[in-house]
Amino acid sequence: MPVLVMKFGGTSVATLDRIRRAAKRVGVEVAKGYDVIVIVSAMSGETNKLVGFVEETSPLFDAREYDAVVSSGENVTAGLMALTLQEMDVPARSWQGWQVPLMTTSAHSSARIVDIPTDNINRKFGEGMKVAVVAGFQGISSEGRITTLGRGGSDTTAVAFAAAFDAERCDIYTDVDGVYTTDPRICEKARKLDKIAFEEMLELASLGAKVLQTRSVELAMRYNVKLRVLSSFEEQSDEAGTLVCDEEEIMELNVVSGVAHSRDEAKMTLISVADRPGIAAAIFTPLSESGINVDMIVQNISEDGRTDMTFSCPTNQVARAEEALKKAKDAGHINFHDLVADTNVCKISVVGIGMRSHTGVAAKMFKVLSDEGINIKVITTSEIKISVLIDRKYMELAVQSLHDAFDLDKAA
Amino acid sequence: MPVLVMKFGGTSVATLDRIRRAAKRVGVEVAKGYDVIVIVSAMSGETNKLVGFVEETSPLFDAREYDAVVSSGENVTAGLMALTLQEMDVPARSWQGWQVPLMTTSAHSSARIVDIPTDNINRKFGEGMKVAVVAGFQGISSEGRITTLGRGGSDTTAVAFAAAFDAERCDIYTDVDGVYTTDPRICEKARKLDKIAFEEMLELASLGAKVLQTRSVELAMRYNVKLRVLSSFEEQSDEAGTLVCDEEEIMELNVVSGVAHSRDEAKMTLISVADRPGIAAAIFTPLSESGINVDMIVQNISEDGRTDMTFSCPTNQVARAEEALKKAKDAGHINFHDLVADTNVCKISVVGIGMRSHTGVAAKMFKVLSDEGINIKVITTSEIKISVLIDRKYMELAVQSLHDAFDLDKAA
Repeated sequence: MPVLVMKFGGTSVATLDRIRRAAKRVGVEVAKGYDVIVIVSAMSGETNKLVGFVEETSPLFDAREYDAVVSSGENVTAGLMALTLQEMDVPARSWQGWQVPLMTTSAHSSARIVDIPTDNINRKFGEGMKVAVVAGFQGISSEGRITTLGRGGSDTTAVAFAAAFDAERCDIYTDVDGVYTTDPRICEKARKLDKIAFEEMLELASLGAKVLQTRSVELAMRYNVKLRVLSSFEEQSDEAGTLVCDEEEIMELNVVSGVAHSRDEAKMTLISVADRPGIAAAIFTPLSESGINVDMIVQNISEDGRTDMTFSCPTNQVARAEEALKKAKDAGHINFHDLVADTNVCKISVVGIGMRSHTGVAAKMFKVLSDEGINIKVITTSEIKISVLIDRKYMELAVQSLHDAFDLDKAA
Repeated sequence: MPVLVMKFGGTSVATLDRIRRAAKRVGVEVAKGYDVIVIVSAMSGETNKLVGFVEETSPLFDAREYDAVVSSGENVTAGLMALTLQEMDVPARSWQGWQVPLMTTSAHSSARIVDIPTDNINRKFGEGMKVAVVAGFQGISSEGRITTLGRGGSDTTAVAFAAAFDAERCDIYTDVDGVYTTDPRICEKARKLDKIAFEEMLELASLGAKVLQTRSVELAMRYNVKLRVLSSFEEQSDEAGTLVCDEEEIMELNVVSGVAHSRDEAKMTLISVADRPGIAAAIFTPLSESGINVDMIVQNISEDGRTDMTFSCPTNQVARAEEALKKAKDAGHINFHDLVADTNVCKISVVGIGMRSHTGVAAKMFKVLSDEGINIKVITTSEIKISVLIDRKYMELAVQSLHDAFDLDKAA
C-alpha cells in the first residue's frame, strides 16, 4: 500500500470536535487506499502549560525532566485521535516516540532524529491497521530517556516519517490554507501559491514566514519529501494548499515567488572603527559568543584608516549586543567612536529560484523602492534572495509596491 | 543503603506548592540516609479530565488507548517532582512505567503487576541518585503497550515497589493523618490508631474506609510490607500516622479496633420462596451473572415448605437486581410471592483481630444496639468482623454507642 503522512498541529487538534474533523480527513485518505501515518501535536495551549510548570518549578531545569514532562501533551492527542478513528471504524492505534522507537541524539529539548525503524509499524500495517497515530515532537535517546525535538518538532517528525516510510507525500494541516506570495494581512492582492520550491520555502521560513519550520523544510529537501501545506479548517480537494517540492517538479519557475517582511530586526552601527586586518573578527567573535544572531553585515568605505561597520540582529538582542561590544571595547579588543542602535527598521526580502538564471531583479527592486521615495539602509543578497533594511514606516508600502511590480498577483 | 518508598496521592501533588511540600518530606528521609523511591499520582483533577476526554470520544473505548491517554497525568507529576528535588540539591530522576520497566498483565485499565526488575533503578542508586520518582498507576504489557492498574493503582504501585526493593517501609501520604477507630465526622471521640493489623485494615477498607485501597493492603499483607498512612499536610514525626503491619508487631491486640459504617447498602427480600434444594443457587446465579455484588445473605426458617430470602447489595445495583430476579421468575427458574427492596438501611461493623481469641463481642454488640432500641435486620460475621444492617436513621447513634461500649476512645 502507498503510505501517506498527515500532520495536524495544535490548533487542528485543540478540541475533541477538531480532532473529529481531522480524523474525517484521515478517513478520506484511508478510503483512497493509503496506509496513513498521522503525526499529532499537543492540544493547543497544553505544551505552554507544561513548559510553564517546569519553568516555575526549576528555572535552570534538567532538560531530561523537561522533556519527560512536556512530551506528555502529544501522548494524550495521539490516544484520542486513535480512539476517534476507531469510532469511525478505521483500524488505528497510537504510538509514543519510545514505542516506534524514534531514536534521537541525547541533546535534550533540541534532539536530532537519528533513526526511525519501520518494522513495528509496518508489521501492524501488514496485520490490517490502517492508521498509525504517532505522538509528534518526541523520541528516545540511546540511554532510554525521553527526548524532544524543540519547537516545530512535530513538522520535523512528520517529514522524517515520510522519508523513513518512503511516503508518497507529507501533508501538513495547519491554520492557514497554504503558502502565499506575501502576508495577506499587509497586501490584499497576496495570492496562494500552488507550488513552491524547497529552496524558496527555506528562505521564506527563515525570513519569518510561520507556515513551516526551517528544519522540517531542510529535511524534506534532503530526502526529497513532497510537502503539502493545507488548512484543517476547510474541506479539501486533492489540489488544495501549497505543494513544497523539488524545483524540477515545477514547470515554470518564478523569477520572484514571494515578498517577505520582518519587523523583528534592528540595525546597529559602530561608528569610526579602526580599519585594520582582523577587525571584523574582533567585532563579531564577542557577538557570536554572546549568542547574538547577526544577519546582515555592511562595511563602509574606509577613510583615513577608519570605517563604519553596520549589522542587523533581532530587536530583543540589541541590549545584549551593546553589552558585548562595550565589554570588548573596554578590554581593548576593538576601538570605536560610537555605537548607534536603530530599532525603527524592518527587513523586506524578495525570494525566487528563477533569480539564478534571471538578472535585473535587484535593480528592479531598488528602482521600485526608490520610486516610492524609500531609502535603503542595508542590502544583502543570496543566490535566490535579496533583502534590504528600510524605515519601518514604509513596510506596507514596500511590500505592496514590490508585489505589484513583480506581478505576484498573477499566476505564472 | 536502606530503601524507603513514599507515595503521594493526587491532593498531595495538586499544585506546584504542594509538590514542593512533598519534596521537602522526601528530603528529610534522604537526609536520614535512605535511598527513596517516590510514587506519585496525577495532580488531582487531571485523571478525571483525561478520562472525560476518552469517554466523550469513544463511549466503548479501546482500553489500550484509554491507558495510553490516562497514564500521562502521572508522567507530568513524576517529572515535576524530580525537578523540585533537584532544585533542593537532592539527586533525583523520574521513571515512567515502561522505563522501569514495571511489567503487568495485558488486562488494560485493570492490569495486575507481574514483575518489577530492580536493576535499572539500583544501578542509578549506585551511581549516586538518591531518589527515583516513579509515575504510579501505570506499567507496560509484554506486547509493549502502556497499561494502567485501575483506581487506587498508585497505592498498589507503591506497595509492589516496597516488596520488590525490600523497603524498610512504605509511607502513604494522603489527606488524612491516619486510620481512625471510626469516622471522626460521625463520632467526635474517634481516635487515631498508632498501629493496625493487615487483616483489620483489609476489613475496614472493604467496609468503605477510603484511606487505603483493598488491593494494596492485600499485597502488603502477602509480602509483609510495613505500610504507614500519614498526612502530607502536616509536619510529621517518625511516629506520625498509622502503621499497618503484621499482627505480630502489635503488642496488645485490640479485641475491637474500629467501628465502620456504610450508607451504600440496600436490603432486598424475596418473600415466600419455595424451600427446595438448589434454591439459593437458583437465586444467586442470575444475580452474579448480572454483576450484582451480594454482601450479606439470610434465610428465614422454613414454614410449610416456603421461606423468605434476604440479601444486601449496593444501593445503585437495586434496579439491576430486581430485573435479574424478575427475569429468573418469568423463566420459571425461581418462584416467589413478592420482592421488597429497602434502601433505607445502613451497615454497621465492628472489626478487631482480637475477636479470634475473645468471645462475647457479638453478644455485647447486640446488647448495646438493643439497649438503644435499635432493631437488627440482618447479621453477618467473619473471623474478625461482625456486621449488621439497621435502619439508616440510627446510624450515628449506633456508631457512637458501640465506640463508647468498646472503649475505643482509650488507647489499648
